[in-house]
Amino acid sequence: MASTPSCLIVGAGDGVGSAIARAFAREGLAVCVTRRLRHLDKLESLVASIREDGGEAHAFGVDARDEDETIALVDRIEAEIGPLSVVVFNIGANVRFPVTETTAQVYSKVWEMAALAGFFTGREAARVMTPRGKGTILFTGATASTRGGAGFSAFAGAKAALRQLAQSMARELGPKGLHVAHVVVDGMIDGTFARSIAPDIQTLLDEDAILKPDEIARNYVWLHNQQRSAWRFELDLRPWKETW
Amino acid sequence: MASTPSCLIVGAGDGVGSAIARAFAREGLAVCVTRRLRHLDKLESLVASIREDGGEAHAFGVDARDEDETIALVDRIEAEIGPLSVVVFNIGANVRFPVTETTAQVYSKVWEMAALAGFFTGREAARVMTPRGKGTILFTGATASTRGGAGFSAFAGAKAALRQLAQSMARELGPKGLHVAHVVVDGMIDGTFARSIAPDIQTLLDEDAILKPDEIARNYVWLHNQQRSAWRFELDLRPWKETW
Amino acid sequence: MASTPSCLIVGAGDGVGSAIARAFAREGLAVCVTRRLRHLDKLESLVASIREDGGEAHAFGVDARDEDETIALVDRIEAEIGPLSVVVFNIGANVRFPVTETTAQVYSKVWEMAALAGFFTGREAARVMTPRGKGTILFTGATASTRGGAGFSAFAGAKAALRQLAQSMARELGPKGLHVAHVVVDGMIDGTFARSIAPDIQTLLDEDAILKPDEIARNYVWLHNQQRSAWRFELDLRPWKETW
Amino acid sequence: MASTPSCLIVGAGDGVGSAIARAFAREGLAVCVTRRLRHLDKLESLVASIREDGGEAHAFGVDARDEDETIALVDRIEAEIGPLSVVVFNIGANVRFPVTETTAQVYSKVWEMAALAGFFTGREAARVMTPRGKGTILFTGATASTRGGAGFSAFAGAKAALRQLAQSMARELGPKGLHVAHVVVDGMIDGTFARSIAPDIQTLLDEDAILKPDEIARNYVWLHNQQRSAWRFELDLRPWKETW
Repeated sequence: MASTPSCLIVGAGDGVGSAIARAFAREGLAVCVTRRLRHLDKLESLVASIREDGGEAHAFGVDARDEDETIALVDRIEAEIGPLSVVVFNIGANVRFPVTETTAQVYSKVWEMAALAGFFTGREAARVMTPRGKGTILFTGATASTRGGAGFSAFAGAKAALRQLAQSMARELGPKGLHVAHVVVDGMIDGTFARSIAPDIQTLLDEDAILKPDEIARNYVWLHNQQRSAWRFELDLRPWKETW
Repeated sequence: MASTPSCLIVGAGDGVGSAIARAFAREGLAVCVTRRLRHLDKLESLVASIREDGGEAHAFGVDARDEDETIALVDRIEAEIGPLSVVVFNIGANVRFPVTETTAQVYSKVWEMAALAGFFTGREAARVMTPRGKGTILFTGATASTRGGAGFSAFAGAKAALRQLAQSMARELGPKGLHVAHVVVDGMIDGTFARSIAPDIQTLLDEDAILKPDEIARNYVWLHNQQRSAWRFELDLRPWKETW
Repeated sequence: MASTPSCLIVGAGDGVGSAIARAFAREGLAVCVTRRLRHLDKLESLVASIREDGGEAHAFGVDARDEDETIALVDRIEAEIGPLSVVVFNIGANVRFPVTETTAQVYSKVWEMAALAGFFTGREAARVMTPRGKGTILFTGATASTRGGAGFSAFAGAKAALRQLAQSMARELGPKGLHVAHVVVDGMIDGTFARSIAPDIQTLLDEDAILKPDEIARNYVWLHNQQRSAWRFELDLRPWKETW
Repeated sequence: MASTPSCLIVGAGDGVGSAIARAFAREGLAVCVTRRLRHLDKLESLVASIREDGGEAHAFGVDARDEDETIALVDRIEAEIGPLSVVVFNIGANVRFPVTETTAQVYSKVWEMAALAGFFTGREAARVMTPRGKGTILFTGATASTRGGAGFSAFAGAKAALRQLAQSMARELGPKGLHVAHVVVDGMIDGTFARSIAPDIQTLLDEDAILKPDEIARNYVWLHNQQRSAWRFELDLRPWKETW
């Protein structure tokens, strides 16, 4: 029977999600990473590199907006890999439109990806962790989680819903031994996208003036390692030079 | 051709919604009130009483979660009754469940009622008001709009999404002349429900220790009447004796 | 014996304070305005203009940082003019220095003017209003009340202390019938200073893109006139075109 | 010439301050702890125990409200012990009085201890750290830092001023390489006082349902060790069972 404590990262994209996976693998957890089925091949190099470093990793093609797939994934990890010790929900869905040009489809899809999927992930994590009286559930937030900027009615609405989910779960499940936290990643993150749009990327990197995925990940691990006599719910991360 | 300025109240329930309708009718606006088709008869006495007092009122059976119905409603009011001067979104959807007992259906329905419907209403109001460079759009919030309490993952998530919609629209449409505001109604409101659960209701009423719909409505009218050199976005209302 | 309800405005400068005084005088209150003794002559034209309009007004030269002077002022108004119905604390102290160049004297003086004086005014208002179980106490805030910007360690610290005073008093005195509120005036205000620094002042005025003292004052009166079944604690005011 | 990096803890009381001192000593910093001169003897056992564990520690009797003493202390540490790498301001001043019973002396003293002393400590830390372009400045906050509860006009006002100081310094000094952070310790902390008032203290301790100073201290060290590509400004700590 499976007994290595496991870690599930829903939405393990190229940047932050991958870094979080690597960081928890280094902590000795059996890491399970998901992306949508059609991007499953992109997870292969991540899984391979974790295994090369001596870690345990598994890739799953899952649509996090699908309730049944999420339930089945959690059950399968618990049965075949190990009891979930950490679950991270890391799906974003950043779009920007004037409100009058925001279609019903855009508004709904963004919510499904950023909030509904987070609800399924969080609820299923709570389902298996609550009987054990321990476990860590982490949600990735953004500037838009607390600020509804012009043009962000869809994205900011969905991220605010996710933050309230996290806050509600923290209040409900904290007294049951589960550490639920929300991490506001507030600033540009180094990665393929940043490198394509920031002409001064090398300066930003040299000066640590851009969020580095590995350093973000180190904070997720820290949240997991906090002892329960002094937990925190929310964590804002931004580079030292960032204006806020 | 229609020319009396009009006011649309989406979700004109027995308490606050009706009071808001009456208050704007007294300001001389042609008031349009909606509820779902099957509750249309309940709007009749409201419309009748406004007309008796010399006001103009119209009832519509509309499902606010339906995009096409909302578009058609706004177009019809503009064409047949008068240009929309005020639009109020006043639909709540208060439910409470432990997160692990919250079904996908509950989570989705609450969001559809409290957030998606608010998006349709707000967007359509913006569509007709923006070319005129004026108009007031008001959203009704609750304690859960800013606080994710235990057991409120669905309700608080939806209300937070609605508040972010309002905040995003305020930032986007303020500079276009539209006054968008969010009213946090924080406390028990006098009405059928409160009277059924509060044994000391008469004391509460005598002492003004419960929110009175007419006084809430007076604040909605005030927001509409603020001059644009000093607008406010958010308004918290609570009774004097309320602990917060 | 004195019986006209009175209103005290501590810090009745040329702009907002004067407008508030005029607004409450129009409501029929006997208005008492203060500035420091050496500026007492500047209050003369204000008092004269209120009287010309048929209102009652009195000027006092008082150092609001002086506890004894504040106690004596409140006692004298209650004895000679009328029971205090409204007290407004409206002293600012905006300064900006890098923290390492902020002297002990600057840090202390700003706090004395913006916070300690507010405490004396608020406490003395509470002293005479609490036995009557009614009265309105209003504090003027600024952007810095909730945001500690770079260079504002002294000013933002003092304004935050004032806001906490208001919040604490609201929670403590609300259940005793006193309406305590804090008004965040967030933006440039029309007046001598704005006119000296804003080259496009006429455009700003024509477009209502600058806060107008009379409109700010109208909101103070509105707060006073709210019925106690639906009070609000905090009010943000900003022009429609303001970025926030 | 002195070259071991040093750490100054202003207000090293029996509980949290001592734990922070011990934690930074274990990190290899030369720890300097202060209390008022008349309590200097109480620091002796702390210093002795740190030295027994192989750490470096020094005790100073200083009134943190005295500007000259604070300047002299920082200069002396820099000259004789080592360049300041971390400065922690940890003085509280919790009092509770109805606002009408709060004397000018109480209101002022609380501010002097909690805010003015924090300003002196923070400013002097910035003075010596800014030229080096690095250093960590940490302020200890409380629930009252962000909430003005009934009866806390003095304490909450002072703590809010301290938080704004921290926020302002973070915005100003972050881009200069200094990490300024504010830690909200939200809940009962284990210690002499808690043990005297909580009859169920052993249960609280067994269940980690009370904040433990060592675990709080571990978070201060973590803040210091964050890399500057992902700093956070504010950290809330509370026990897992705490209601919030």
